[in-house]
Amino acid sequence: MATIDVIGGGITAPRGFTAAGIACGIKKNGRRDLALVVSDRPAAAAGIFTVSLAPAAPVVVSRAHLDATAGVGRAVVINSGCANACTGAEGLETARLMTIEAARALGCDAEEVLVASTGVIGVALDRLVAGRGIIAAAAALDRRHHAEAAEAIMTTDPFPKSDAVRVTLPGGTFTVGGMAKGSGMIEPMMATMLAVLTTDAAVPPALLRRALVEACDTTFNAITVDGECSTNDSVFALANGASGVEIDERSYSVLVEALASVARTLALDIVRGGEGATKLIEVRVTGAASGEDARRAAKAIANSLLVKTAVHGGDPNWGRLVAVAGRCGSAFDLARARVTIGEVELFVDGRPFDERADDAGRHLAGREVVLQVDLGTGGSSEATVWTCDLSAEYVKINAEYRT
Amino acid sequence: MATIDVIGGGITAPRGFTAAGIACGIKKNGRRDLALVVSDRPAAAAGIFTVSLAPAAPVVVSRAHLDATAGVGRAVVINSGCANACTGAEGLETARLMTIEAARALGCDAEEVLVASTGVIGVALDRLVAGRGIIAAAAALDRRHHAEAAEAIMTTDPFPKSDAVRVTLPGGTFTVGGMAKGSGMIEPMMATMLAVLTTDAAVPPALLRRALVEACDTTFNAITVDGECSTNDSVFALANGASGVEIDERSYSVLVEALASVARTLALDIVRGGEGATKLIEVRVTGAASGEDARRAAKAIANSLLVKTAVHGGDPNWGRLVAVAGRCGSAFDLARARVTIGEVELFVDGRPFDERADDAGRHLAGREVVLQVDLGTGGSSEATVWTCDLSAEYVKINAEYRT
Repeated sequence: MATIDVIGGGITAPRGFTAAGIACGIKKNGRRDLALVVSDRPAAAAGIFTVSLAPAAPVVVSRAHLDATAGVGRAVVINSGCANACTGAEGLETARLMTIEAARALGCDAEEVLVASTGVIGVALDRLVAGRGIIAAAAALDRRHHAEAAEAIMTTDPFPKSDAVRVTLPGGTFTVGGMAKGSGMIEPMMATMLAVLTTDAAVPPALLRRALVEACDTTFNAITVDGECSTNDSVFALANGASGVEIDERSYSVLVEALASVARTLALDIVRGGEGATKLIEVRVTGAASGEDARRAAKAIANSLLVKTAVHGGDPNWGRLVAVAGRCGSAFDLARARVTIGEVELFVDGRPFDERADDAGRHLAGREVVLQVDLGTGGSSEATVWTCDLSAEYVKINAEYRT
Repeated sequence: MATIDVIGGGITAPRGFTAAGIACGIKKNGRRDLALVVSDRPAAAAGIFTVSLAPAAPVVVSRAHLDATAGVGRAVVINSGCANACTGAEGLETARLMTIEAARALGCDAEEVLVASTGVIGVALDRLVAGRGIIAAAAALDRRHHAEAAEAIMTTDPFPKSDAVRVTLPGGTFTVGGMAKGSGMIEPMMATMLAVLTTDAAVPPALLRRALVEACDTTFNAITVDGECSTNDSVFALANGASGVEIDERSYSVLVEALASVARTLALDIVRGGEGATKLIEVRVTGAASGEDARRAAKAIANSLLVKTAVHGGDPNWGRLVAVAGRCGSAFDLARARVTIGEVELFVDGRPFDERADDAGRHLAGREVVLQVDLGTGGSSEATVWTCDLSAEYVKINAEYRT
């Protein structure tokens, strides 16, 4: 039996990892903008990336490096303030040079370095500035600097996101840590964000990749802020074996659970920190004819502007939930459908209970909201997706992002 | 050769049509809330309705009536202030009673009356109030009352929408008129709104239906405000033959063109009057591998919150257009893609031209904005979709719709 306990810290909670987060001048406001996460020994490495057909330069480079090493890595370098996306051959060269600079500072191969960027699309990343930043970050590496690293990857995120858990197995303990940034352009497939997960378990690269995919499925891939998938989405996992605990097929599910625990905390924090968000919304769809139907309906509800604005206004407008469930393309039976807000059933078997609206309104006044829709098909498939409300602040942030 | 001229008026511009728009107390603020459009003789009738699996009661009833009569109608009755959606068997009975009441007042069969509702979902429509309203509207019918009818179908629409055109053929002239309401929940398939088109041409029912579908395809079905399809979307066409001009296969395309002309004016007015809208955005996608790819990309761009907020803020953020084009699922080649804002090419063959951003910004400062994305596949398929910007006002309207 394994137990999983939440502990303090972040990406450097697992043994053998150090980090740094410094300000090197990519952001014009003097904030931290370059993070480095380093394993003191070669680690198994895995990555999941945006499905965009316009992937940013660092995505192209990181994919190539993981292919070349068959899943071995030493470090992840991440800058904020510039996405290095839609920057052509120049941008690709810049991303490559960033890995070369980091490799030189760390004494490893460039292909063992993964790279990610986040910020404005279509602006050239100054490679001299980034290169100097990498040298400074390498000099600042410390196990205590996980919070600085988490801060250095933020863009419009209102707060940094870190988490760590300790896993106790009969044969020993290992640790999983992580950090992530949101905050707009958040829609899974892949969950439009950057994250790094670290562990001191020893995991074969192929197993690590499988575990990362499985852990992301119900966490980073089950959140949405605005239905957008970006050019830069990347989630990395590094497993360096420093704990001495070896993961095999028998203990695989424990690793998935531990990765998912950290990923879920980070994912929900991404939603809580969504641009202009004031509420975390959990959308549960039940009674679906298939898993795909459940997921499609949950995503459609979570991305509906009318649902998100109604929640923002504290309006128990179950009609909008029915409208989205009915138009989303999933099988739906109005006469047997059910809408529940919090614990309050507002629509059951085709009949509204508007006298309960005040109770539902009280639930919506809170910071965490649960919307449940049974599609009424009699099927047993379910899905849960998390999103945030849509506020005037979101519009303000995104209308003025570059100005 | 046919000529099509825009003329004044609306649904009563064609001969043989009268209309009324009165206030009967469905809306609590005393505004007009019941419209009646009547042909003085039996007319060919056609309808296109929401694809929602939770259609509102009036949609169910109107579909059944068109089926029962094989496309013959005398009148359309529309109320605003209550959608009569998700109202179960009671709501269905109310919608049926509305057609019976109208038929009694007009001296026709109930099945010759079509019905539509718009407003809040899940609230019972008071059938006594609606019934009294129908009697009052029937007494107020007049050819001069087209503007009152267009006003009576409004919900959050900032202005009423009417249009009419006169078609001159070698053998005579006929007229097409129309009215529509938006204003949130606007996303085609079907274009989530209510509209009535009238003509005094004589058109066989099957031909009228075909013409309506074809005319809507590039108009009502090519607009989106918020990506929502409602429970109540309905577009009706009535053709009463009062002009003496008979439409057959040879003159069919002229009828489509005339219907599309009125529908396009109404559709663009729906977008201009979108909730909180300050700008009309035309999204043109070219260079797509297929018509479906073109349409998917145009819709994705038009529905992107990041694109809509950037336009709202006057930010020539071409990177967001590339990001959406790259993630939407249509074939896309970044190295040959092209983004044009107004007449200004900002991204060509993988290379940004940010020195032109100020010119593009000037175009975005206007009330009508054109965004053009070539997907770079070398294909020749194109699509145009119209949408509006997303403002803080949209959030305000929809957060407070019921309160």
